[in-house]
Amino acid sequence: MSHTVEILSVGTELLLGNIANTDAQMLSQGLSELGLNVFWHTVVGDNLQRAEEAVALAKQRADIIITTGGLGPTCDDLTKNVLAEAFGKKLIFDEESARRIRSYFQRTGRPMTDNNLQQAMLPEGCTILPNDWGTAPGCAFEADGVHVIMLPGPPSECRPMFQYRARPYLLSLSEGVIASHTIKLFGIGESAMEARLRDQMNAMSNPTLAPYAKEGECELRVTAKAATDAEAQALLRPTVDQVKALFGDKVYGVDVPSLEHVIIQGCKEKGLTLGCAESCTGGLIAKRLTDIPGASAAFKGGIVSYTNEIKTDILHVPGHILEQFGAVSREVAAAMAEGARQALNCDVALSSTGVAGPDRDDRDNEVGTMFVAIATQDGVHVRPLRLGARPMRERLRTQTASHAFDLARRYLSGLEY
Amino acid sequence: MSHTVEILSVGTELLLGNIANTDAQMLSQGLSELGLNVFWHTVVGDNLQRAEEAVALAKQRADIIITTGGLGPTCDDLTKNVLAEAFGKKLIFDEESARRIRSYFQRTGRPMTDNNLQQAMLPEGCTILPNDWGTAPGCAFEADGVHVIMLPGPPSECRPMFQYRARPYLLSLSEGVIASHTIKLFGIGESAMEARLRDQMNAMSNPTLAPYAKEGECELRVTAKAATDAEAQALLRPTVDQVKALFGDKVYGVDVPSLEHVIIQGCKEKGLTLGCAESCTGGLIAKRLTDIPGASAAFKGGIVSYTNEIKTDILHVPGHILEQFGAVSREVAAAMAEGARQALNCDVALSSTGVAGPDRDDRDNEVGTMFVAIATQDGVHVRPLRLGARPMRERLRTQTASHAFDLARRYLSGLEY
Repeated sequence: MSHTVEILSVGTELLLGNIANTDAQMLSQGLSELGLNVFWHTVVGDNLQRAEEAVALAKQRADIIITTGGLGPTCDDLTKNVLAEAFGKKLIFDEESARRIRSYFQRTGRPMTDNNLQQAMLPEGCTILPNDWGTAPGCAFEADGVHVIMLPGPPSECRPMFQYRARPYLLSLSEGVIASHTIKLFGIGESAMEARLRDQMNAMSNPTLAPYAKEGECELRVTAKAATDAEAQALLRPTVDQVKALFGDKVYGVDVPSLEHVIIQGCKEKGLTLGCAESCTGGLIAKRLTDIPGASAAFKGGIVSYTNEIKTDILHVPGHILEQFGAVSREVAAAMAEGARQALNCDVALSSTGVAGPDRDDRDNEVGTMFVAIATQDGVHVRPLRLGARPMRERLRTQTASHAFDLARRYLSGLEY
Repeated sequence: MSHTVEILSVGTELLLGNIANTDAQMLSQGLSELGLNVFWHTVVGDNLQRAEEAVALAKQRADIIITTGGLGPTCDDLTKNVLAEAFGKKLIFDEESARRIRSYFQRTGRPMTDNNLQQAMLPEGCTILPNDWGTAPGCAFEADGVHVIMLPGPPSECRPMFQYRARPYLLSLSEGVIASHTIKLFGIGESAMEARLRDQMNAMSNPTLAPYAKEGECELRVTAKAATDAEAQALLRPTVDQVKALFGDKVYGVDVPSLEHVIIQGCKEKGLTLGCAESCTGGLIAKRLTDIPGASAAFKGGIVSYTNEIKTDILHVPGHILEQFGAVSREVAAAMAEGARQALNCDVALSSTGVAGPDRDDRDNEVGTMFVAIATQDGVHVRPLRLGARPMRERLRTQTASHAFDLARRYLSGLEY
């Protein structure tokens, strides 16, 4: 049987626009991977009447209802009451949940007010979903042919509660297991990737292949369903291999978090140190590398040279090169990378220079004209970039940093630049 | 008459979780500021039947329906058809819109396929909302006592289309004008801010006062409604002054984009140059400063010193200080700021050092132990930070950078640190 899902989010903060409904996005992704069809997202505020209306509707049109929000201790939090009422269930005090709530407050050293124990009131006969990431437990039950799952609203709780509590519950509704791998690509556009895979994607049913694009990168998620994990993996393997063969060295990893992770990891494995010199990216390359816990094992540091003075004084870019070619040039990118390698005394140095906009530079270079370079013991390589007709500062800077990372991962993997 | 709004978003990519519904958040914020009550968000996919059901429902329960998405040229894009049908309107070819679409493709140098002209089919008698940020025009009409506004889905189009097209249309529905100011604060928590304002907020109706919190900062939006802008401003002024007096130097600006904007602006005005030396923030301070177009007028550059070697070699932090106090110390933060001021030859230098986690450092400093410092011609000032019981690397780094910015804005404004 094919299940249809409605995600019902309860919270006035969503209707006021204080926060975006990222829970619904996260759940939609996770549910799609389980092969469940999400047909509706609904948001209502902390209002009894409209919450009741929304639940009545969802009960008619979906056979799985997942709610987020409205499980907390304040009087605004009405989700459990409305759902229990709609499905003719009483709320019952659960001693074990109460114990967990008390222990949570003890552990975090915060005082507990009595209304927190309201969170231990749960629908009779439900499966309790213990919350190790906050105080409000979730719950799940089946009634009137509908599965109901209630999850807390804060994204830092909702995400693990879905992953570790709701997902296993949903998996138990279907027979077998679902497994997936994510193939990460750089250097190919989403539409080009889709064009090369479209026929294949449409022809496949198990495993399935789903493309995603974000910030100048692409990923392909391969998902298979089978009786056991081993069987699912056996289904996945040929497709993963096929995609890797098809896109060759544009694939930078499978099940890896990001380009910068691949680089830090690669440097660590090879015992190489890393540094950078940034002009147009203005610290973003260093920032992204140091987003990674433990980056200091490979990353030594960087120079943000936003003026020619710093390029000459600290990176020792020769004045005549700056003068002759301008700061936005192949020659200066190369000299910055070499200079950073010297100044920071590192094995691999990346550099960036370019026009991030909104205006052209003083040499009339177009916005989006960028150069990234890498300096290693084998010499220097520069990659010139023309990043586009409809540039936006933030996107330009992100893509430029990613191209610099791409140089590094190609060096570390022994690939052509 | 008090209007009630439903935001109806059409797009399978939302139900698959490929993107979050940031349009709905942006619109909700904007509509709340206009004093309109958003009661429902609904998302459906590119599916005729469910789109029809959603529109029928919205027509019953709201008197303003705002749709996002589904205006593009592909056959999936069905919003206009469904809305026109539901309100008994024909779609009519609009020559002026067709001309704008052709000219858009000419301008961006992309080839235009014929299906793009479908976007010029618009409901008879509607107000056309020209789209200067993409190809699909929006539209607005009133029928059966309901106002319908259709906006394109891509956030880079939806945002300006709301701001410059839908907002004026909605303003014309109500008598008078709405004006608001945003007061930005740093150095006070949201709950502390709310606690001091709660009685006042509840007692106010015009202007209203709404608090927002994000990434360690707070803001208060004051909104007034009046017959003319001058009258609205007259209503706003006393409240803005009152809030500023109440929170004193925790207010860093009114209607300013961010702390870093205030600093770049302040340096420009005073003719001062700016630089930084970063350890735990790893490039984030430089990155946030260079997010601002034109930052180069004040910001010269920065050093990311992720190792002691770079702290000594480039920032000239004395080895004995590193040895005696450790890299995460008041003394090293001070020496880094002074060193950056020298090395970068700038008037104002900021520094950061600390433990961003996930683990304690080699001297057993707790995660969240941070020091930020500022060096100017008047000397050095260090601010020690203890950032928390439930720290997350990203939040810690953001807050540390903001504290460094706070030192700079206090220096630039002649305030106590």
